Amino acid sequence: MSREYGRVSIVNLVDLSSRTLEIEPGILKKFIGGAGLAAHLYSEFVKEDVPPLDPASPFIIMTGPFTGTSIMLSGRHGVAGRSPLTGFWGEASVGGNWGRGLRRAGYDGLVVLGKAEKPVYLSINDGKLEFKDASHLWGKDCFETDRLLKNEWGDKIQVCTIGPAGEKMVRFAGVFTDGVHARAAGRCGLGALMGSKNMKAIVVQGQGEIPVGNPDALKESVKELLPTLTGKLKGLSSFGTPGLIVPCEAIGDLPVQNWKRGKWTEGAKKISGQELSERYLKKQFFCFGCPVGCGRTVGGMIDPTLEETGGPEYETLAMLGSNCLIEDLSGILRLNELVNRLGLDSIETGAVVAFSMELFEKGLIGPQELGSLDLRWGNARAAEGLIRMIADREGFGDLLAEGLKVAAERIGGMAPEYAIQTNNMALPAHDPRAYASLALTYPTSNRGPCHCSGFTFWFERASIFPEIGIDKVLDRFESEGKAEMVIKVQDVMSLWENLALCKFSVLGGVQLQDIGKWLKSITGWDLSLEDLIEIGERSFTLKRKLNVGWGISRKNDSLPLRVLTHRVSDGGAGDHLPPFNIMLADYYERRGWSKEGIPEQETLNRLGI
Amino acid sequence: MSREYGRVSIVNLVDLSSRTLEIEPGILKKFIGGAGLAAHLYSEFVKEDVPPLDPASPFIIMTGPFTGTSIMLSGRHGVAGRSPLTGFWGEASVGGNWGRGLRRAGYDGLVVLGKAEKPVYLSINDGKLEFKDASHLWGKDCFETDRLLKNEWGDKIQVCTIGPAGEKMVRFAGVFTDGVHARAAGRCGLGALMGSKNMKAIVVQGQGEIPVGNPDALKESVKELLPTLTGKLKGLSSFGTPGLIVPCEAIGDLPVQNWKRGKWTEGAKKISGQELSERYLKKQFFCFGCPVGCGRTVGGMIDPTLEETGGPEYETLAMLGSNCLIEDLSGILRLNELVNRLGLDSIETGAVVAFSMELFEKGLIGPQELGSLDLRWGNARAAEGLIRMIADREGFGDLLAEGLKVAAERIGGMAPEYAIQTNNMALPAHDPRAYASLALTYPTSNRGPCHCSGFTFWFERASIFPEIGIDKVLDRFESEGKAEMVIKVQDVMSLWENLALCKFSVLGGVQLQDIGKWLKSITGWDLSLEDLIEIGERSFTLKRKLNVGWGISRKNDSLPLRVLTHRVSDGGAGDHLPPFNIMLADYYERRGWSKEGIPEQETLNRLGI
Repeated sequence: MSREYGRVSIVNLVDLSSRTLEIEPGILKKFIGGAGLAAHLYSEFVKEDVPPLDPASPFIIMTGPFTGTSIMLSGRHGVAGRSPLTGFWGEASVGGNWGRGLRRAGYDGLVVLGKAEKPVYLSINDGKLEFKDASHLWGKDCFETDRLLKNEWGDKIQVCTIGPAGEKMVRFAGVFTDGVHARAAGRCGLGALMGSKNMKAIVVQGQGEIPVGNPDALKESVKELLPTLTGKLKGLSSFGTPGLIVPCEAIGDLPVQNWKRGKWTEGAKKISGQELSERYLKKQFFCFGCPVGCGRTVGGMIDPTLEETGGPEYETLAMLGSNCLIEDLSGILRLNELVNRLGLDSIETGAVVAFSMELFEKGLIGPQELGSLDLRWGNARAAEGLIRMIADREGFGDLLAEGLKVAAERIGGMAPEYAIQTNNMALPAHDPRAYASLALTYPTSNRGPCHCSGFTFWFERASIFPEIGIDKVLDRFESEGKAEMVIKVQDVMSLWENLALCKFSVLGGVQLQDIGKWLKSITGWDLSLEDLIEIGERSFTLKRKLNVGWGISRKNDSLPLRVLTHRVSDGGAGDHLPPFNIMLADYYERRGWSKEGIPEQETLNRLGI
Repeated sequence: MSREYGRVSIVNLVDLSSRTLEIEPGILKKFIGGAGLAAHLYSEFVKEDVPPLDPASPFIIMTGPFTGTSIMLSGRHGVAGRSPLTGFWGEASVGGNWGRGLRRAGYDGLVVLGKAEKPVYLSINDGKLEFKDASHLWGKDCFETDRLLKNEWGDKIQVCTIGPAGEKMVRFAGVFTDGVHARAAGRCGLGALMGSKNMKAIVVQGQGEIPVGNPDALKESVKELLPTLTGKLKGLSSFGTPGLIVPCEAIGDLPVQNWKRGKWTEGAKKISGQELSERYLKKQFFCFGCPVGCGRTVGGMIDPTLEETGGPEYETLAMLGSNCLIEDLSGILRLNELVNRLGLDSIETGAVVAFSMELFEKGLIGPQELGSLDLRWGNARAAEGLIRMIADREGFGDLLAEGLKVAAERIGGMAPEYAIQTNNMALPAHDPRAYASLALTYPTSNRGPCHCSGFTFWFERASIFPEIGIDKVLDRFESEGKAEMVIKVQDVMSLWENLALCKFSVLGGVQLQDIGKWLKSITGWDLSLEDLIEIGERSFTLKRKLNVGWGISRKNDSLPLRVLTHRVSDGGAGDHLPPFNIMLADYYERRGWSKEGIPEQETLNRLGI
């Protein structure tokens, strides 16, 4: 069953029908795949202002041309749509095995439209789409759903699902795959989008061939790079992203106590990757095609009969750990399992818990909102209770389920000061006071404050991308050179999103020339370095254009005041505050956007969008 | 009729009664008078959250111990209350002769409470208060009101009045004195507060003695300083504040085209103080006791039969001139006379006109809102029409009468980007991109963005206050040393407000030691330099405390995004943007405020408030 790359199923939940759309080669060459192609399809399918949770709001899943091929670190896919959390562009990508499963089932992507009358799930089996009743799955957590579906279809299927939080349209519910290993497309609340469609899960299976024009050339080229890559990513292999906790704390990059403190050395040691490995690690988790295995596998904490469950990432340890002053690693592991089961984004959830702990400390909430929950800093058990209230939308949890900004505004008083968010989305666990570039990256990221659409904190401390002129280490506290760097990194990382390639490949030494070579082996396209960067810029700018249509302008490109005006006073970034407004001005100028942050017509014309 | 300093009349408009309150010496020593004492009285009279235009909202007028004495530049008084424009603390001080008139009529201040059933005015005649029917004055402009009252009471009275804008509670209506010479307590919309009470005017007359303990010592000390002062203020005498237009344009301090441009050299020449002197100046206007006479007197523009009317200040020429790209000086003079007659703040009005011109340019408003008004940049005639609509609250003018922020939010889209305001109050005509200290002064000024409660742009370029350690010129674009300087200047200028002393006295060489000497001659108090500074800090912090009670915190301490992120690209400050958030963090720390901008209890205790 040989086919071309670019096969997308348009799924209509209103009448439970589907049709196949073959994306034109011209469009593929402009956007490649992944999030960029998703943004293109969104703008093709939606010509009016459709609220995120409206039935007409598309839920999009995309792989890329590399997904499931012999290219290392290619076991990824992305979900996208208008974010129920921010109201702006939403995307989240995820590793594991589901993306490859979709492609082997015959499709490179899905666009889901409409809303089913009652809960359904989708099965895609070697090109055949079926809509199945999901009433027996509704209310089940992500682990249970995966198990029940595997009981029905066998263990060879791949399942992507939402948890109870997604069903209840918690604004920061995610889309999960790989069962108990819990790979999460967490950010932007796309689980709520999926839930709003009454769609519980998507099961994929099949033996279809993944289109690669010249498999031998591809394999050869990949093989060449492998030793370098595994060498460079050795640390990541050993400790996974949790290995970052201690070094990030040391440089003042780790959020502590809702972003109020700069130093937490003893606490960081207790929740470190080293500690996790020694005390809890069962084995590594490898996404498809990955020689590194940064994923952690631990035993079940909530259900101790589970021998393996997905362990926490750096972000989870930080947001549900240090940022809540929780230093009990087993408690964090339990919270991690809980959010994975309920289908919540651990970053956003951690931020909401820390916010609530600060409200509790300041007396803005108490027994009336929390019942008997003693929500003092560091209390993992109370955090657990709060998270269940959120997923259930019970009482005060119902308000928190709307996101930080909305909740803070309704609570009033000083509450907005404690909501560390931009456009209703929490900052992830890297501190803009430690890296000025992050202060610029977060507000300008199209999907909301995002460390992955920039990863500028890598680039700020290492000269790892000479191809695009990032060849010297910059002073991490100064504005100098940051706008230029952030733009380059955002554009190139947008390309990576389109390829659905793991971003650790960059740390592993994958360069644009490799991307060009691999794309040529797969599709025959001959793309220059400039072409590739422009593809990234085009995707990035198209998303900005969508966001502008939804009301984004300079006023939205902001950071929480705490991060802008609160010096943490000790730790690796104690005295520093980011020169934000100055970098933002530089950024607009270099991007070809107006002073108000709107892409100029000339810029749009140049990029053909 | 000898009396002590500190005699205040508490006026109740509900039952048209009044009583006299002698302020305790202990309180006087803590606040002295003026705006500080007004803030103290406000907190004494109001214990609940009273909206600005509620009948229970006090309207306060205060002089100081220097007012009307032989101290030069002492012909001033202040009005105060909760600002109808911002909802926070409001104060505005003004020169002329009315303050002295009030004191000679037997009072140092007034607190007006309640709302009259129908329009009244107040007459204070040698200690005797009377409530008079004002129905024949209602609807009359400030010039007419002054004339009509003088026709009744004789030319020796002093009149303070509101215009039609104050009657209609335009949120940026002022309180005016000195008839056609139009001295304006313009900022914060206190004319709307007065109007909300159905109080049109206050007439004062009398021969009462102004309390001075040792008049000879006072006279001697004042005389000594006189030659220095007149020498230093020679330029101000020659060209008044309009003399600042050309030098301010040269350094990038003058707002041009709604703060979008940095250079307007030819235009500035056309609206300069020199041009004004050559073409229109009739004579100088001298406030009581002033040897300088920075006030300008020109002929009537709207009513050419008037031989003398108050000419424009720097702020008026800038806000209704350069900021609207109006380079027709006669047109600006006409607008100046118009706002003085209607009783509008010329700063706010200029900002609202410029904002509307930008809305018009961008197509956000048109014939539907403006009728036939062709509101292109520079069109003084159209500006005149718009201003009349505002004062009449006619159609679109009714919305503009609510202030920049409110109007912009209702208009929506990009409109908030063009509203150059903080907390609904327009920035005055000095550019924070030209002086970093202004970027810190504006948001932290208690009455809203204010160049007078700081005057830091003077201090940033000259070492004019060695007594308080301001003894070197600072780099005007950098953050270094700015928090310290801004705090010192704000505290000392708060003291000046309490004294109701003209701030040009500082440029004229008046130092704190002179203030101490004069206070001693008048009251017998022996206050050290530290005491005096602390009085300023106390008043400043009390107002902050009031503002905090009304919801002020770090979130309000902001600047318009245009000023923070828009480089004007040419002129004397072309490439610069103020390092705002960094200075703000320094400021809170030095002030003894929390990271959220709330004075710590310890700070309040130290100041006894």
